[in-house]
Amino acid sequence: MLEITLVGTGGTFPLPNRWLTSLVIRYNGRMILIDCGEGTQLAVRKCGYSLNPIDIICITHFHADHIAGLVGLFLTMGNMGRTKPVKIIGGRNVENIVKSLCVIAPELPFQLEFLEIQDDFLEMPFGDMIIKAFAVEHSTKCYGYSFRLKRKGKFLPDKAKELGIPIKYWKNLQKGESVVIDEKIFTPDMVMGSERKGLSLTYCTDTRPTQSIIDNAKDNDILICEGMYDTPDKLQKAIEKKHMLYSEAANIAKTANVKELWLTHYSPCIENPNENIYTATDIFENTKAGYDGINKILMFGE
Amino acid sequence: MLEITLVGTGGTFPLPNRWLTSLVIRYNGRMILIDCGEGTQLAVRKCGYSLNPIDIICITHFHADHIAGLVGLFLTMGNMGRTKPVKIIGGRNVENIVKSLCVIAPELPFQLEFLEIQDDFLEMPFGDMIIKAFAVEHSTKCYGYSFRLKRKGKFLPDKAKELGIPIKYWKNLQKGESVVIDEKIFTPDMVMGSERKGLSLTYCTDTRPTQSIIDNAKDNDILICEGMYDTPDKLQKAIEKKHMLYSEAANIAKTANVKELWLTHYSPCIENPNENIYTATDIFENTKAGYDGINKILMFGE
Repeated sequence: MLEITLVGTGGTFPLPNRWLTSLVIRYNGRMILIDCGEGTQLAVRKCGYSLNPIDIICITHFHADHIAGLVGLFLTMGNMGRTKPVKIIGGRNVENIVKSLCVIAPELPFQLEFLEIQDDFLEMPFGDMIIKAFAVEHSTKCYGYSFRLKRKGKFLPDKAKELGIPIKYWKNLQKGESVVIDEKIFTPDMVMGSERKGLSLTYCTDTRPTQSIIDNAKDNDILICEGMYDTPDKLQKAIEKKHMLYSEAANIAKTANVKELWLTHYSPCIENPNENIYTATDIFENTKAGYDGINKILMFGE
Repeated sequence: MLEITLVGTGGTFPLPNRWLTSLVIRYNGRMILIDCGEGTQLAVRKCGYSLNPIDIICITHFHADHIAGLVGLFLTMGNMGRTKPVKIIGGRNVENIVKSLCVIAPELPFQLEFLEIQDDFLEMPFGDMIIKAFAVEHSTKCYGYSFRLKRKGKFLPDKAKELGIPIKYWKNLQKGESVVIDEKIFTPDMVMGSERKGLSLTYCTDTRPTQSIIDNAKDNDILICEGMYDTPDKLQKAIEKKHMLYSEAANIAKTANVKELWLTHYSPCIENPNENIYTATDIFENTKAGYDGINKILMFGE
């Protein structure tokens, strides 16, 4: 299972009742944070999560509303006893930029490891998960992220019986280990069905609609997508500022055939993100206007 | 008059119910901000103030809990239409450090002007106010700030009559302008009494008790002083970390003969800053455990 929580949903600057957009993914006792604007450490804690399990931070781009909270987060993690390295994924120059911000935090008790996205694409494993970064289209270089938790095939007891594998070895094979019985090697693929549909989600803010979002979000369980502006009269502004309308996000969700869409990264001018949600739901019914703390546990299907 | 608001009272890192320590001074439609940790822009807005009138930002030192919110503040001020320069006062290298933080805000629509404290001391006028910075004693170079609003002497109508100055010129002299009547020059000092006691306050956090605080706070209307730790059993920790106990702040207030003391910059371990306030009030009765939003208007006496 994966637990996802949109700890903030604001764009541009934080509001007294809306933190900046940031997503927490909890998986197997570990945490991934996507973006960290000013106040994100508080937003995470307000959702009831400790900061300590954050192992990976994915940065979409280097505008302050997505990164200015990083130093405060690091210091608080240090204060709370973090000593394990933290991995930061981001675009070109991520290491220099984060180090520049860290001028006021020269002595962190843990290492920062940097992974720079090369040639606009990155794919890395994280346990049974695959993290991908892909380019989107903003006023500055910006990346979306997708996360896929793989799911093994079903164990096939009939096959195991047919091969004469004693029951005591089945667990090893289910765990992906090979076993040797009477000098004969049995590998997991001999008794496991083909890989089943896992869990998947895609996250993108600060972008115009792009084919890359559709491709990455294809058949996902959830798409978390910016909806900086609500009504169609803001289209020109959205084009100029390289953001999206609710309806554009909904069109992506529909084309990509996702199960659910959460909108986020609202303009500070939007007081009630739900007010014009119909502009999205008319296109893609299962749209939710994300709010600070919206949470979902994604479970493997049957 | 001066209006002072302690917009946050936390030390080290922000808590969900306590912003980082920062003071707003409002004077004559303008604002001075002292320190700007992560979230201070929100703390100021939660107090109901616009960010736009902030003309001067005084930085005590470069630990993140006192400066990490600067970039976010600048960007929001820019978003809100600020075009007038903002002056930043701080210790050695203030310009380089702030510019390093601004790597994620390369295009602010207003200028930053830097005033570096030289030889551990600074004194500058700001309207009828004098702003002073003085060195305190922390684990890194750190400064306290004091603010004094001057008050002119009383206008002496008997003297004006004696000198034969027509009433229609009295206002000019009261405003500090000289007037020429029948080719004779009359200067304000001829009709004004000597300067009266103005308003004064001193602010210091992140320091052990020092003589410099006592000297600057002497007879002040208010001293805003750190009280990182409450009870006497934390003395050793206070000495090691270069902070103060409530009682040490109270002793300064007593020795300096201030009218009122506000404690601030509490350790995140202090859940209720009022709980052990007696450790200060036993020494200096008019002590308040500062809280986010505590506010006072200082008025000239009669």
